Amino acid sequence: MKEIVYKRKVNFYETDAQGIVHHSNYPRYFEEARGYFLEKNNYPYHIVRDELNIDIVLLELSVKYRKFLQFGDTFEIKTKVNIENKYYFFFEYEVLKDNTLISTGYTKHCCIKKDSKKLTVIPKQLLEIMKR
Amino acid sequence: MKEIVYKRKVNFYETDAQGIVHHSNYPRYFEEARGYFLEKNNYPYHIVRDELNIDIVLLELSVKYRKFLQFGDTFEIKTKVNIENKYYFFFEYEVLKDNTLISTGYTKHCCIKKDSKKLTVIPKQLLEIMKR
Amino acid sequence: MKEIVYKRKVNFYETDAQGIVHHSNYPRYFEEARGYFLEKNNYPYHIVRDELNIDIVLLELSVKYRKFLQFGDTFEIKTKVNIENKYYFFFEYEVLKDNTLISTGYTKHCCIKKDSKKLTVIPKQLLEIMKR
Amino acid sequence: MKEIVYKRKVNFYETDAQGIVHHSNYPRYFEEARGYFLEKNNYPYHIVRDELNIDIVLLELSVKYRKFLQFGDTFEIKTKVNIENKYYFFFEYEVLKDNTLISTGYTKHCCIKKDSKKLTVIPKQLLEIMKR
Repeated sequence: MKEIVYKRKVNFYETDAQGIVHHSNYPRYFEEARGYFLEKNNYPYHIVRDELNIDIVLLELSVKYRKFLQFGDTFEIKTKVNIENKYYFFFEYEVLKDNTLISTGYTKHCCIKKDSKKLTVIPKQLLEIMKR
Repeated sequence: MKEIVYKRKVNFYETDAQGIVHHSNYPRYFEEARGYFLEKNNYPYHIVRDELNIDIVLLELSVKYRKFLQFGDTFEIKTKVNIENKYYFFFEYEVLKDNTLISTGYTKHCCIKKDSKKLTVIPKQLLEIMKR
Repeated sequence: MKEIVYKRKVNFYETDAQGIVHHSNYPRYFEEARGYFLEKNNYPYHIVRDELNIDIVLLELSVKYRKFLQFGDTFEIKTKVNIENKYYFFFEYEVLKDNTLISTGYTKHCCIKKDSKKLTVIPKQLLEIMKR
Repeated sequence: MKEIVYKRKVNFYETDAQGIVHHSNYPRYFEEARGYFLEKNNYPYHIVRDELNIDIVLLELSVKYRKFLQFGDTFEIKTKVNIENKYYFFFEYEVLKDNTLISTGYTKHCCIKKDSKKLTVIPKQLLEIMKR
């Protein structure tokens, strides 16, 4: 499956008193990266919601921190998708700075119908993007 | 008008690489303080919304930073209300640590009807609290 | 080992456009909860840093989201420690609202010397707290 | 003085339960915009700190909210500088979406020496950029 690379700079307000990016920003970076993933595949999230009438729900979050990022750093996030079954899928992330691995992580998701909020199978349009 | 004092500790994730509370957290502290103000006056915000069918909108924000806060600091926010006219009112804040003034600020607000989103006069129940 | 219970209310600025607490706030709640854990055991984090001359580093973060929290909700976080070996330990968290499990998670940590930034064994004063 | 235009998309985690960008994100957007301003003028902030040995301190923040931003919106911030005297200066911001004014604001600043933390005059290199 195609990997999408998202580029980003560290904002000052994302640092903490240890002088590094606070760990709680990585889930936010991941969210940006998977939004970018959908966008680059011509399925920005608002289209997902409006056309497919679903919400993508986040069920699990995992991050491993190997090195840190600092204010002024430019980094990239490599994102890919891993489909578990017809209901559940993962986004997987690698955060890199100058080709050095800073952090890895994943988020587990499912789809729910926008109205009923009930679990539903991953729509085939979304599956196609993910399998591309 | 009665002043309400809200007490709070600085969280580590609110600090930045200068080792102090990042300035963008003060608007968040103010939001907590005015929520506490309404609550202490027996009108927590969800009651305001559900009973009075209004939303309180934030129109302006102003903060002056005199001294800084650091991780582990305990501080208090003195909050009071200032009514401009039947539509507009201000919350005014003083942030103090050990009786030293750290910061002052205000937020300007109006009320809108929850359904139509149109400007409406400050409901008299809310006015009473504010004038108490 | 003693479990410590930390109580908290959801702030409005922690919600997102789905009307619930944004998932990236849970790592922040966890940080508050482990700070409270250390404090309740008479070892607030600034004492850890100043007396023991160490920094506690976060290596891993894991969160499972079962249910959600909304603005106005009061919740509690049950925190306990799990020691892996003389270097590594876990904080484990359960987020509950009205005795309903909302989320579980853990963070993995080690200690580094404040000056050299090198990995060091968990200081015995800290171990004692954790084993209590 | 030259105006610099910074472009940005709203991130989902910046929205709140009213479905709009939470007001506390505007100071963060402003920080990004003035960082971009310095960068576009070949004086990124880390150069300011390292070469000129100063820190730029934020003394005041003011924001007026006219309209709101939502998830998925692309907006721009027009930033310019206003010098009050040899010590104090302002960054002034206009937030626009599709040429509609969303918000205006300013931040007031001074320079302090990195070591002594004492107020110092605005370095002439910085003044030159600002006057360009």
